[in-house]
Amino acid sequence: MARGTSMSQQREILFNAFDMNCVVHQSPGLWRHPDDKASTYNTIGYWTHLAKVLEKGKFDGLFIADVLGTYDVFNGTNESPLRSGAQAPVNDPMMLVSAMAAVTENLGFGVTAGTAYEHPYAFARRLATLDHLTNGRVGWNVVTGYLPSAARNMGQEDQMEHDERYNHADEYLEVVYKLLEGSWEDDAVQNNKETGIYTDPAKVHSIEHEGKFFKVPGIAITEPSIQRTPVIYQAGASSRGIKFASENAEAVFVTSPTREILKATVAKIRDAAEAAGRDRYDVKIFAMQTIITDETSEKAQAKYEDYKSYADVEGAQVLISGWMGIDLSELNPDEPLGANLKSNAIQSTVETFQKASGDDGNPWTIRQLAEWVGVGGFGPITVGSGAEVAEKLIDWVDYTDVDGFNLAYAVTPATFEDVVEYVVPELQARGAYKTEYAQGSLRNKLFGDGDRVKETHRAAQYKISNRLPAKG
Amino acid sequence: MARGTSMSQQREILFNAFDMNCVVHQSPGLWRHPDDKASTYNTIGYWTHLAKVLEKGKFDGLFIADVLGTYDVFNGTNESPLRSGAQAPVNDPMMLVSAMAAVTENLGFGVTAGTAYEHPYAFARRLATLDHLTNGRVGWNVVTGYLPSAARNMGQEDQMEHDERYNHADEYLEVVYKLLEGSWEDDAVQNNKETGIYTDPAKVHSIEHEGKFFKVPGIAITEPSIQRTPVIYQAGASSRGIKFASENAEAVFVTSPTREILKATVAKIRDAAEAAGRDRYDVKIFAMQTIITDETSEKAQAKYEDYKSYADVEGAQVLISGWMGIDLSELNPDEPLGANLKSNAIQSTVETFQKASGDDGNPWTIRQLAEWVGVGGFGPITVGSGAEVAEKLIDWVDYTDVDGFNLAYAVTPATFEDVVEYVVPELQARGAYKTEYAQGSLRNKLFGDGDRVKETHRAAQYKISNRLPAKG
Repeated sequence: MARGTSMSQQREILFNAFDMNCVVHQSPGLWRHPDDKASTYNTIGYWTHLAKVLEKGKFDGLFIADVLGTYDVFNGTNESPLRSGAQAPVNDPMMLVSAMAAVTENLGFGVTAGTAYEHPYAFARRLATLDHLTNGRVGWNVVTGYLPSAARNMGQEDQMEHDERYNHADEYLEVVYKLLEGSWEDDAVQNNKETGIYTDPAKVHSIEHEGKFFKVPGIAITEPSIQRTPVIYQAGASSRGIKFASENAEAVFVTSPTREILKATVAKIRDAAEAAGRDRYDVKIFAMQTIITDETSEKAQAKYEDYKSYADVEGAQVLISGWMGIDLSELNPDEPLGANLKSNAIQSTVETFQKASGDDGNPWTIRQLAEWVGVGGFGPITVGSGAEVAEKLIDWVDYTDVDGFNLAYAVTPATFEDVVEYVVPELQARGAYKTEYAQGSLRNKLFGDGDRVKETHRAAQYKISNRLPAKG
Repeated sequence: MARGTSMSQQREILFNAFDMNCVVHQSPGLWRHPDDKASTYNTIGYWTHLAKVLEKGKFDGLFIADVLGTYDVFNGTNESPLRSGAQAPVNDPMMLVSAMAAVTENLGFGVTAGTAYEHPYAFARRLATLDHLTNGRVGWNVVTGYLPSAARNMGQEDQMEHDERYNHADEYLEVVYKLLEGSWEDDAVQNNKETGIYTDPAKVHSIEHEGKFFKVPGIAITEPSIQRTPVIYQAGASSRGIKFASENAEAVFVTSPTREILKATVAKIRDAAEAAGRDRYDVKIFAMQTIITDETSEKAQAKYEDYKSYADVEGAQVLISGWMGIDLSELNPDEPLGANLKSNAIQSTVETFQKASGDDGNPWTIRQLAEWVGVGGFGPITVGSGAEVAEKLIDWVDYTDVDGFNLAYAVTPATFEDVVEYVVPELQARGAYKTEYAQGSLRNKLFGDGDRVKETHRAAQYKISNRLPAKG
C-alpha cells in the first residue's frame, strides 16, 4: 500500500500526456487517420488546444520528447524515417512552452533536452526563463545522448562512451544546480523603487565552478524563479542510468509491457532512491500506457480495430530499431524468428508483447509486433470503456506501486480528448484522481511539500542557503 | 529621394520596438517610475500585452536584444550592474516568442542570438521552429560576441579575436543557410494520407558541410518553414561588421545621435550592400530613437522632465562603459573632461550628444551624458506632440535615407503605448505610415517581394533549387 494512504482511501493516479514536436511520435501510420491532427504539429494552435484539453482533464503535465537526429538505424539510411515521418522532421520542444503557458494555469511542462549539446550556462538560463514565464510549472527531462546521427551532426564522431556520458551529465547538472540554486540568495532581488536597488550585489555569488568538462567562474545571469531547479525528469533503464536517476530524478518515465515487469522496475527505482539517501516516494514513477476508450467497451474495441488498420509496419520497424539499437531491416517481418544472435533481444521483446496483449495463439512475427507498436508505442495498450480503463489503471497502480501513467496517443489530440471525457470522470468517481489541482508550482503539485527541491535531493547541497554561514 | 517614391508620395516609415528580457534595457532608473512595468519582464502578461499594443500600432517588429553576461566593465565588478538592474538579470529572448505569436497575426519578432554559444545544428532547428510557429514572422539578430563576461562563463578565456570572430560567424551562418535552404526541396514534404508518404526521402539532401569550425554531414532535421531563413538582422559598426552585414543582413540597426552622422552611416551601409552585389535598398536600416510624446508639446515636455528625474546616473555609466569598452568609474562624473587618452572617445561622445540635444551652454560632464542616456539609451531623444514627432521623423527619413526607427522605451510599455496613440495616426495622416499590414511573412511585409531570401543574398547560393541540376 502506498505511503500516506489508508485502506479506505484510494491513491490518486497521476497523468502525463506524452507528445513530441513532430508528426509521428509513437504511432506510425496513424497520422493518416481522418481524425488525426499530428501533421499540424508545427502550428501554435495544435499546442494551445492540446494544453487546454489536458488542463481540463487535470493532467499533471505534458511531457515533450525530443531527438536531434534521425532514426537511421533501420537499414542505415534516412529513407524509412522520412517516408513514414517517424520522429522526423522534428522541431524544438522548448519554443512551445510559453504559448501553452499563456492559455493554462496549472498544467506542467516537461521538456526534453540533452546534456551533450548546449553549454550549461546558456541552458540554465533557458530553464530559468521558462520557470519564470510559467510561474514554476517547468520540468526538464534530462537525456544524456541518444541517437548517433545527432552526435555526428554536432561535430562528434559518435556519442561519448556510455558511462563517460553519464559522468559528463553529472557535471552538467552540477553546473546547472550551482547556477540555479547557489548563486542568488532568496532575498537578493529587492526591486525597491524607493532605494533604487534592484538587486543587492552582496547577495549574488559567483559559482566558481571548475571541473573536468566545464569552467564557469561567474554568477548566474537570472534571478531566482519559483522552483529554481525545474522538476527533474529522467528515463533511463541501465544501471548507470538508474544511479543517475536515483540522485537527480524527481519523476521517472518507464516502459514496461506487463504488470510484473513494471512492479519490478518500480521497486528497483525506489530502492535506488533510498540507497541515495532519499525517501523511496520522492521519485514519482510514470509508466507508459496507451488508452483507447469510448462510451462503451464495444465502441472502444471498434476504435482500436479502426486505428490498427492505419498502423505503418515500416514506420514501427524504424522506431523499434532506434529504440533497441538493432537494424530490423535485416530480418523478414513475416518469418518466424530464428535463433540467430541478432534476433534474441527482438525475440524476447516479441514474446513479451504478445504475452502482454493476451494473445496466446501462434508466435508473433515482427510484423505483428510492429502492428502493436503502431498504435501507441512500446507500452501496454488498454482498450475499453472509461470504467473498464479506470479499473485497470487502479489495478496496475495497486499491484505495481507506480504513481501514474505517461499516456501516449494513437491519434492526437483525440486520444487525449477521449481520456479526459471517458476515463478521468470514472477515476474521479472512484477517488483515484484529483478533482482540483493543488496550489503552487509543478513540484508542489506533485509532492505537496513546497516549490523547492527537497533537502535530500542532490541539488540541495548547492542551495546558497546551505552554503553560507548562518547569520546573526 | 527614396527608390520607388515620387514627389507626391511620402515614403512609409518602419517601426521596430526595442526591448530586452530584463528590467533595465536602455533607461536606467526609470524602472522606479510609477508607470513602469519593466520589473514584470519575467511574466508572460508583460510580453503578450506589449505584442498586442505594437500590433495595434502596426509596428513591423519587436526586436529583443540580449546579452549572456554582465556589464562588469564599470569598476570591474558586477556590483553596479546588479544594483541598478542594468541589463542584469536577463532572461532568454527566444522563449518569449510563441506566447506573443499566439496573440498576434502580423507583428514580427527579431530575436538576438550569438554565434559563439550554441552549435548551429541545434540553433538552426530553434529558428526553424519559431518560423513555423509564427507563420514566418521571425528575424534573427546575429551577434558574433559582445561581453567578455559571457565568454568567460562559457568556458572561454575571452572572446575570440575580433576578425576571427567574424570568420567563425561567417561559417556559422553558412551552416545555418545550408540547413535551412539547402537540405529539403520545396516539395519534399508530401503529407499525403493516401500514399502514406510524409516526406519523399529522395528530396531531402545531406549538407555535407566540412569547414574550419564545424562538421555537419547530415540532413536538416526540420521541414521547410515559410521563410526558411529568418530575416537576418545585424548591428555592427566596425568595417568587418559592415562587410558581414553587407552580405548577410536584411535589416541593420544603427545608433547615430545626429542627422548628419546617420546620413553618412546609411550611405555607407547601402554602398556596402551594393558592393556585395545587392540592391542598396535590400537592407532596411533602422535608427535608434526614443520618443517622448503626449497630447500636446507641453505635456510631452513635462513628461520628459518627469522621466529625467528618475534617471540613474550610475546605471547609465554602467551601460556606457559596456557599450564603449571604457571603464567610466575612473573618471569623476562631475568634473570637466581632461585631455587624457582614456577620455578622448568619451569626450567626443559627450560633445556629440550635447550637440544633438541642442544644448549649446557649458560643456557637458559625464553626469549630463548619463542623464541623457538614462531616458532611452544612446540614440536621439525626440520630445513633442504626435504631430511634432511625426514631422521630425519624416524630416529625418527624407534627409538621411533611413528606412525607419528602432524605438527604445523610457518607460515600458507606456512609451510604446504613447507612440501608438499619438504618433502613428499623425504619420498615417501624412501618408508616411502603413494603414494596413502587408500580407505574408515578415520578409514579404518588409520587402514586398516574397517570403524567401532574394537571389542576391548570400543565403541564396545555398538554396537547394539553385544547387540541383534543372529537371526535365
